[in-house]
Amino acid sequence: MHALGRQILVEFYGCKERVLNDTEHLRQVLLEGTRKSGATIVSDTFHTFSPHGVSGVVVIAESHVTVHTWPEYGYAAVDIFTCGETIDPWAIMHHLEAELGANNISSTELKRGLFPQKKLHKVVVKDAVGV
Amino acid sequence: MHALGRQILVEFYGCKERVLNDTEHLRQVLLEGTRKSGATIVSDTFHTFSPHGVSGVVVIAESHVTVHTWPEYGYAAVDIFTCGETIDPWAIMHHLEAELGANNISSTELKRGLFPQKKLHKVVVKDAVGV
Repeated sequence: MHALGRQILVEFYGCKERVLNDTEHLRQVLLEGTRKSGATIVSDTFHTFSPHGVSGVVVIAESHVTVHTWPEYGYAAVDIFTCGETIDPWAIMHHLEAELGANNISSTELKRGLFPQKKLHKVVVKDAVGV
Repeated sequence: MHALGRQILVEFYGCKERVLNDTEHLRQVLLEGTRKSGATIVSDTFHTFSPHGVSGVVVIAESHVTVHTWPEYGYAAVDIFTCGETIDPWAIMHHLEAELGANNISSTELKRGLFPQKKLHKVVVKDAVGV
């Protein structure tokens, strides 16, 4: 069977609270990890929550990377969803591992969209809408 | 154990190709489903791919909703990641189910960030950065 997408779900426990609450730093960490994977960054949006926490999404031509942090728990939930054969989603995970300073990490890789035959898949961004 | 987040992964097979390739329509479907769940929409970004396919992200105060479509396969991968007790993530799934016209659906619900004790969690958007 051919999988259209692969998805890595990562739980980062025991992270540095300071890093999990610094939106711009976290954004740079995610963007740098995404670049290291070879993915093409299309757009990103990061939000800071009160009293604490950050949510961030990096849309890539090959799908997406998301992060949600709970600094008060030292916890970050990261999803890395990719398609195509040219990028290494684990490079993002390893970059985050180094930057977040997690004590414990739990990760799972899933296959998304299983089909018996392979067809062409999307690679080029044509247009964008949104607010 | 208390889960900080819950995540629903949905595979929509046998969808209407026209719907999966219509970026603005798909965006409205996702936004409407998200509203029905009771979630607070923070921002959204949708991209059209060549020769076909759409990627979309709706950032909500309670985490995110994403969609990636492969119209040539009639397939859409949807993730609904939520936190808090006030919204119904399955409402998004059911709205998409009606709108995408899928022949087959496979869904899984996961718990993210398990801790023995419950603390306050993020609810208010304070600031946003991104391109």
